[in-house]
Amino acid sequence: MSELGRLRRDESEISSWDDACDVLVVGAGCAGACAALEAAASGADVLVLERAGGAGGTSALSGGLLYLGGGTAIQKACGFRDSAEEMFKYMMAACGPGPDEALIRPYCEHSVDHFEWLVRHGVPFRPAFFEGAHEPFTSDEGLTYSGSEHVHPFDRIARPAPRGHITQHRSSKGARLMQSLLGAVETACVPIRTQARCDALVTAPDGRVLGAVVKTVDGVRSVRARRGLILTAGGFIFNREMVASYAPLLRACKAKVGTENDDGLGIRLGLAAGGEAIHMEAGDISLVLFPPNQLRQGVLVNRAGQRYVNEDAYMGRLGELTVLRQEGDAYLVCDNEIFVRPELFPIELAAVGETIEEIESALGIPAPALQDTVAAYNRHAVERRDPLFHKGAHYVKPVETAPFAAIDLRTENAMYAVFTLGGLHIDAGGRVLAASGEPVPGLYAAGRTTSGVVKQGYSSGMSLGDGTFFGRRAGRSAATD
Amino acid sequence: MSELGRLRRDESEISSWDDACDVLVVGAGCAGACAALEAAASGADVLVLERAGGAGGTSALSGGLLYLGGGTAIQKACGFRDSAEEMFKYMMAACGPGPDEALIRPYCEHSVDHFEWLVRHGVPFRPAFFEGAHEPFTSDEGLTYSGSEHVHPFDRIARPAPRGHITQHRSSKGARLMQSLLGAVETACVPIRTQARCDALVTAPDGRVLGAVVKTVDGVRSVRARRGLILTAGGFIFNREMVASYAPLLRACKAKVGTENDDGLGIRLGLAAGGEAIHMEAGDISLVLFPPNQLRQGVLVNRAGQRYVNEDAYMGRLGELTVLRQEGDAYLVCDNEIFVRPELFPIELAAVGETIEEIESALGIPAPALQDTVAAYNRHAVERRDPLFHKGAHYVKPVETAPFAAIDLRTENAMYAVFTLGGLHIDAGGRVLAASGEPVPGLYAAGRTTSGVVKQGYSSGMSLGDGTFFGRRAGRSAATD
Repeated sequence: MSELGRLRRDESEISSWDDACDVLVVGAGCAGACAALEAAASGADVLVLERAGGAGGTSALSGGLLYLGGGTAIQKACGFRDSAEEMFKYMMAACGPGPDEALIRPYCEHSVDHFEWLVRHGVPFRPAFFEGAHEPFTSDEGLTYSGSEHVHPFDRIARPAPRGHITQHRSSKGARLMQSLLGAVETACVPIRTQARCDALVTAPDGRVLGAVVKTVDGVRSVRARRGLILTAGGFIFNREMVASYAPLLRACKAKVGTENDDGLGIRLGLAAGGEAIHMEAGDISLVLFPPNQLRQGVLVNRAGQRYVNEDAYMGRLGELTVLRQEGDAYLVCDNEIFVRPELFPIELAAVGETIEEIESALGIPAPALQDTVAAYNRHAVERRDPLFHKGAHYVKPVETAPFAAIDLRTENAMYAVFTLGGLHIDAGGRVLAASGEPVPGLYAAGRTTSGVVKQGYSSGMSLGDGTFFGRRAGRSAATD
Repeated sequence: MSELGRLRRDESEISSWDDACDVLVVGAGCAGACAALEAAASGADVLVLERAGGAGGTSALSGGLLYLGGGTAIQKACGFRDSAEEMFKYMMAACGPGPDEALIRPYCEHSVDHFEWLVRHGVPFRPAFFEGAHEPFTSDEGLTYSGSEHVHPFDRIARPAPRGHITQHRSSKGARLMQSLLGAVETACVPIRTQARCDALVTAPDGRVLGAVVKTVDGVRSVRARRGLILTAGGFIFNREMVASYAPLLRACKAKVGTENDDGLGIRLGLAAGGEAIHMEAGDISLVLFPPNQLRQGVLVNRAGQRYVNEDAYMGRLGELTVLRQEGDAYLVCDNEIFVRPELFPIELAAVGETIEEIESALGIPAPALQDTVAAYNRHAVERRDPLFHKGAHYVKPVETAPFAAIDLRTENAMYAVFTLGGLHIDAGGRVLAASGEPVPGLYAAGRTTSGVVKQGYSSGMSLGDGTFFGRRAGRSAATD
């Protein structure tokens, strides 16, 4: 990271600007596209830079799912009641510790508008509900549960509603989302320059961001941003040094979600220009085990043979609780009726046996910890109850039919997908804030370059959700501040 | 925090300097005193500012215990073997996640020298070992276990040695420490100006810190620091807004450790001058329940009636694991042989009963979770074994003699003492680093204004330890860089 000092240049180092625009957007993922659209709609002359060979970024590789609610047309069409207030209650309960109300409040209040804006800009959603349990799927329904809204403890905190709004496509949902947004950018006549990497921000003596130094295939060029510069350049999961320094617990996860350009350059540019990065330890950690959801009938235990969460929780909650609180050691204990190979990734069996005692012994769990756990679980399961962790009744049945197996969910052997959630501190207008709480003049950001609506307690769609939402706001702010 | 922009002033705002010195030290706790001593010993003209009415800071209110080792004279006199390498192994295992090797390595390698330096500067240590279990005590022995070195899992990772070196005094150990250090400062003819609050750092156009704007009883004065300025102004546990923003989980704890001047001003000054603050979420959280250690024979459980740690772990480890991983919900289940009122603070009983089943029911733990936990514990306890969490055999006996009680250790009802551990990023020379990894020219820091040798996994004495150690280094660096 020692190059960071050079990520900021003084105005005096620029003899003359090679290019100029009103609003310069750095990164052409979902946040950048939305920033460009709103800046252009506000009358600004906009230029988008993308360091990769083509636009789309990590958004184009994603599941195309946006966390939206409050009573969208799709929610209504599928028969679900929702309100901004219930959405707010869920997010304030789930997205902590210390959820950022300054971002969550407007995000919920304007979510219906945002959905309609996306539709107007060509993002297709089919008004149909996917009944599965919020894992990747290959049909094209437009709505699903993408968090833990309908399971314990959140079902008691806020009225559950599915808020995962999925771009309509059977396979490449994220690519389809970006096809729409980038198509809208093209329609708006906003140029996107690819293979153009922003290597430094140029600042005035008073700290205002004036433009950027950009490495392009035609050489290094200086670009003046007359009104503002917007950083929408992804997170830092592919920067080994930053992860080790800021978010060491995330290193245990095998699967990094993103592109190699999620190397934190956007965050580092913002830091170099005087912005503050917050909650840099945070990440989304998803345990990718389901589908099939039949496996949720199993008993998830830590290395002490104890349950620690309802097994029907969202994969992000399962992953976080396992990696952050159980030191990444977990097993799913199944019986012969429950066990099935997961559809998405291979698994390893940590133990098989004719009795739970054999499983316990094979896992090295001191007796009778696992036997007690399973017996207590079964005692209530015959009544389809789970008084300890409140798993939904439809997943609760006794684990009693030999043989038994323990699926190895230790981080080194299972599929935990991870990306970073910490980043630049922004206000609700997408303005990058210094540690003082004051905006860095001329600098804006959105998406995973920022710390957004969620710290821990991720629900799917919150990154495309806050990236598009605050991307738009950053675009408007940059054009009009 | 919105005043932070004004915490930095341009050189051009200072028409002429009212005062000047080579090295200006902001804060007269242990780190500031040691910084002043080493800067003066390096030939610098030093001035110390203290915003309170007298010097000493939080250090003077502390237990006067420093985490030192590697084979100090006191360790040897008490018959304990230690080495820098074993100390390093313990700290790298305990002080994570992602322990800062750049600080821990020199801290361990030079710990014996540092101990001798403290002795030379008048800090008294009596070569006697306190056998208790590293809680506050009122005798005057000089050595004790102040962490989890001798308990699971650390006893398997590094050869245990007690490293809590306690300033000799029966009651006011911290005050005695500061009496020595401040006496040495006086002997070195370094002036300490009290009621002098540093309100802003003055920087040159290239970012170098040149001096400070200081509010004194004689009005606002500008002080030039010709060689360097050292921030040793404490942590931020008494800044409600900073804690809410950076370290929300710490809010649950009732007892804040520090003075009202631990309001983060030093950190904010450093941020305003371009430094980076790291690991701002981290804190020491101590569950103050013992002595008497007899209570460690109880069974510590979470709201699901599960054990989660060996009850003989250090109070900082018990506190952290309870607040950070168990959502602050815990109970200590005792039988009639174990139960006794703690010596230091009153407790509340969450339940009493003739059977564990009654306790379980009164706590609202679904049967048979707690009964299973206690039965499994007792099954091994008859052999004085704890295969699940490896509590030391001398604390392991069956919990079986009615009546039973559950001590309420939920954060709202028990004594958790907390202070912040995050702060400015420094190198091993006490230089404040920008996010680039490059030093901010002219700026140094130590103590709880910085992120030091420990993030989580606190052992007592690590704050006075790294404050004095890196305070000295900051003083030398500022005088000689």
